[in-house]
Amino acid sequence: MTNPIRVTVWNEFQHELEDEAIGSIYPNGIHGAIAEGLQAAGGFEVRTATLKEPEHGLTDEVVANTDVFVWWGHKAHGQVEEAIVDRIHKRVLDGAGLIVLHSGHFSKIFKRLMGTTCDLKWREADEKERLWVVSPGHPIVDGIGEYIELEQEEMYGEHFDIPQPDDLIFVSWFQGGEVFRSGAAYNRGAGKVFYFRPGHETYPTYFNEDIRKVIANAANWASPVDRPGRVTGNYDPLEDLPWYDKKHAVTEQFGDASLR
Amino acid sequence: MTNPIRVTVWNEFQHELEDEAIGSIYPNGIHGAIAEGLQAAGGFEVRTATLKEPEHGLTDEVVANTDVFVWWGHKAHGQVEEAIVDRIHKRVLDGAGLIVLHSGHFSKIFKRLMGTTCDLKWREADEKERLWVVSPGHPIVDGIGEYIELEQEEMYGEHFDIPQPDDLIFVSWFQGGEVFRSGAAYNRGAGKVFYFRPGHETYPTYFNEDIRKVIANAANWASPVDRPGRVTGNYDPLEDLPWYDKKHAVTEQFGDASLR
Amino acid sequence: MTNPIRVTVWNEFQHELEDEAIGSIYPNGIHGAIAEGLQAAGGFEVRTATLKEPEHGLTDEVVANTDVFVWWGHKAHGQVEEAIVDRIHKRVLDGAGLIVLHSGHFSKIFKRLMGTTCDLKWREADEKERLWVVSPGHPIVDGIGEYIELEQEEMYGEHFDIPQPDDLIFVSWFQGGEVFRSGAAYNRGAGKVFYFRPGHETYPTYFNEDIRKVIANAANWASPVDRPGRVTGNYDPLEDLPWYDKKHAVTEQFGDASLR
Amino acid sequence: MTNPIRVTVWNEFQHELEDEAIGSIYPNGIHGAIAEGLQAAGGFEVRTATLKEPEHGLTDEVVANTDVFVWWGHKAHGQVEEAIVDRIHKRVLDGAGLIVLHSGHFSKIFKRLMGTTCDLKWREADEKERLWVVSPGHPIVDGIGEYIELEQEEMYGEHFDIPQPDDLIFVSWFQGGEVFRSGAAYNRGAGKVFYFRPGHETYPTYFNEDIRKVIANAANWASPVDRPGRVTGNYDPLEDLPWYDKKHAVTEQFGDASLR
Repeated sequence: MTNPIRVTVWNEFQHELEDEAIGSIYPNGIHGAIAEGLQAAGGFEVRTATLKEPEHGLTDEVVANTDVFVWWGHKAHGQVEEAIVDRIHKRVLDGAGLIVLHSGHFSKIFKRLMGTTCDLKWREADEKERLWVVSPGHPIVDGIGEYIELEQEEMYGEHFDIPQPDDLIFVSWFQGGEVFRSGAAYNRGAGKVFYFRPGHETYPTYFNEDIRKVIANAANWASPVDRPGRVTGNYDPLEDLPWYDKKHAVTEQFGDASLR
Repeated sequence: MTNPIRVTVWNEFQHELEDEAIGSIYPNGIHGAIAEGLQAAGGFEVRTATLKEPEHGLTDEVVANTDVFVWWGHKAHGQVEEAIVDRIHKRVLDGAGLIVLHSGHFSKIFKRLMGTTCDLKWREADEKERLWVVSPGHPIVDGIGEYIELEQEEMYGEHFDIPQPDDLIFVSWFQGGEVFRSGAAYNRGAGKVFYFRPGHETYPTYFNEDIRKVIANAANWASPVDRPGRVTGNYDPLEDLPWYDKKHAVTEQFGDASLR
Repeated sequence: MTNPIRVTVWNEFQHELEDEAIGSIYPNGIHGAIAEGLQAAGGFEVRTATLKEPEHGLTDEVVANTDVFVWWGHKAHGQVEEAIVDRIHKRVLDGAGLIVLHSGHFSKIFKRLMGTTCDLKWREADEKERLWVVSPGHPIVDGIGEYIELEQEEMYGEHFDIPQPDDLIFVSWFQGGEVFRSGAAYNRGAGKVFYFRPGHETYPTYFNEDIRKVIANAANWASPVDRPGRVTGNYDPLEDLPWYDKKHAVTEQFGDASLR
Repeated sequence: MTNPIRVTVWNEFQHELEDEAIGSIYPNGIHGAIAEGLQAAGGFEVRTATLKEPEHGLTDEVVANTDVFVWWGHKAHGQVEEAIVDRIHKRVLDGAGLIVLHSGHFSKIFKRLMGTTCDLKWREADEKERLWVVSPGHPIVDGIGEYIELEQEEMYGEHFDIPQPDDLIFVSWFQGGEVFRSGAAYNRGAGKVFYFRPGHETYPTYFNEDIRKVIANAANWASPVDRPGRVTGNYDPLEDLPWYDKKHAVTEQFGDASLR
């Protein structure tokens, strides 16, 4: 595609303001660090949005002009308004991409799209995580070696209560003895969803070059295709059914004519 | 398993009471016809429940003693209370089975579990449906030939807005020119979900022997395995992390100890 | 099913005869230990077969009377005759089950069914393996806890060059830092295939109660459904195509009428 | 990617030379028509190769400089040499793409990669095919409407003996009463495979603009990612196992350093 992909990086932006140590790791916020990584990768038009902005920074206008959302949240999931979740949900099913990071596993939008609890085991023990690539031809791992090693991260352990991924991309090894499906790709409606595990707020994970590359690859992969909106509702036959009186129903056009 | 599988057949039970023609096709209700099919198949302990009963007939006690739910609804989806949907949702993720029939594609419980709109095309034209088996070794098609033919059914057409099935079992051909993924199996949490398309209220579909066989097979397939409840939450390392102070946290026991 | 499932446990049976230490771990051969486990589980009619028997013990008659094969091989994969591999391959596609264990990842029959190299990393370092359940509702993990721990096993590491499993059941953690998709279920033709990693010849893994339970569960899961053989070849239309002269072709009946 | 994707369109090129009617539909051969479509789409460096050329036109040099293969064969599958099939098979598992068209379902390379018989039902009755999109966000359907209609095509019917696709993109409706999974995407090794049904030699299908768009989209989707070759074989631990003597084994480098 010749046009830049329009990415909106959303962050609840609480930890960085409330905790000095975290604030010093992410002086521009977690969203800022992620946005910088995307800018450096090139090919994206990046904006950011945070919880405390009006409509969480996710107005109709912003959402309608976003191809791919990146989502980081943790302690304030409950403060995200249902109407905004509805808006993102619709936009993703209509074709947009959504990249859910780390503690975003418990965000309303991710749980809504998955249909499961998205619960898991966790531990903050400054331990090593090694993310092994198990889908070596997937565009999300372009430029990535056999594994990504993070010296210190929070542990997330199985069972991770998600639907079986359409493509399982990474599996993590943790020093304390657990494994985790840490890169999981889904098709939902006309949209694409990628869950990527790393990024606890107390570590500089979003400055890691491999992690940035994965997020940029995922944003490329998740960008919308150019297709007419889906048609649903009462539908006249395409073949002749002589006994049937055509309704010439105005079928519902599902989604916008096109996202791009 | 030696114990009978406990099945609860749920039906909104509106069409049969309000429309004489439909009532004469299903004198015992759609739930009655489905329950008779399961009784005839054997190996099940079957009860029924309907919308107008207290708590829609799905009390805590009933839900806790149900291994597999069968769900038929159409015009009254909106009358099903959220609290009851929560209850069924939790029970399915904890390991129970759920068989969603026909217009149940728009039920709250199915949409909640799928995370998508579950929308589709439809037409009532008394046309032929032929359900082709595309997963020939799946237990749900035990005893079924290459296809099931229904002389008259409502049409459902693609795109059907569901997640890609974990196993796609049937694909339907319709006389008017459409196709439909009409048998779709999912794992969700520790539970199993099967969507099966046929069964418009104006046709005697649930008396068809093949349709009954598929539903009975699905109830067998969807019955819970016998495992301890899932453990989530803060979790001590299984390997020694010398620098880490174990929390001996009371991790949350997710789900009952066992469904059976 | 009321009839016992007919299982044939195949082993190349070389290590046990050639290496005294291994022979003392498995005095009745690896096949003997596996067969004992299945006998103890109940519901199976078990026989064994080994490489040095005529036709490797897998005559037409044996194959035609086997519902599920269990396969252990390592150093003698190359000695298995193509004609026998053809026979098992056909039987599996016609509906039989196949459970491939450990070093059987490099067997001719597994590579033939997968279509990939089935290569991996390995290490013999007497290290710990912990198999985490990631598909908690699958019948293969009935009766199994959150994980299976084996104090000493050979390491197998990713990338494991297999098609993405239809159901991923177990993911292994290894002490040396690797992960592995160690329980992988596939549908192939009308048959079912389960790859299960543990069982290096120098460890008593096939006496472990959890490992035995998984193999018995897998044999139940993989047993054939009862359906007519698949029909292929030139096929007359089911709908009227007035311009077309029906061939009344003798279509090929693919597979036996039924495996059971 | 800035570099053009290097595509090799392979055709057995027999029908066009032996049958005048077919030759007049495809004066430059089926490969010629497909290559023209790719050229018109842009972004590709296209060459063609045919059966009767030395090494079927698929020399080591050609294969090493191909990112994506397109494959059309029908009556001469048996004449394709095993050594050439080995070469393509290895190249695909190392990361190349493979687009298998129509009667290529019975080609050696497709059967090798699938591991199944790839058999199906067929009929030449000049009937209508309608390919419905069932994966609306997949890059292979970029620019494609709800369905593609072909006035006359050969029928292929289920059961199609392939592994369940990693992504099912199209399902076909046929006038005579059958359905078919007519667009099926797979990951195999580090490579990608797409089977696309249309294109019987007696119809001008490869001049259809939608069909050409799908093939061009598939060639883009199937192009290799840029990653180091996979590492397999004996592998030293990444974590310290104090009792284990590192082998410093020369592990096998699997695949070239990179395909691009």
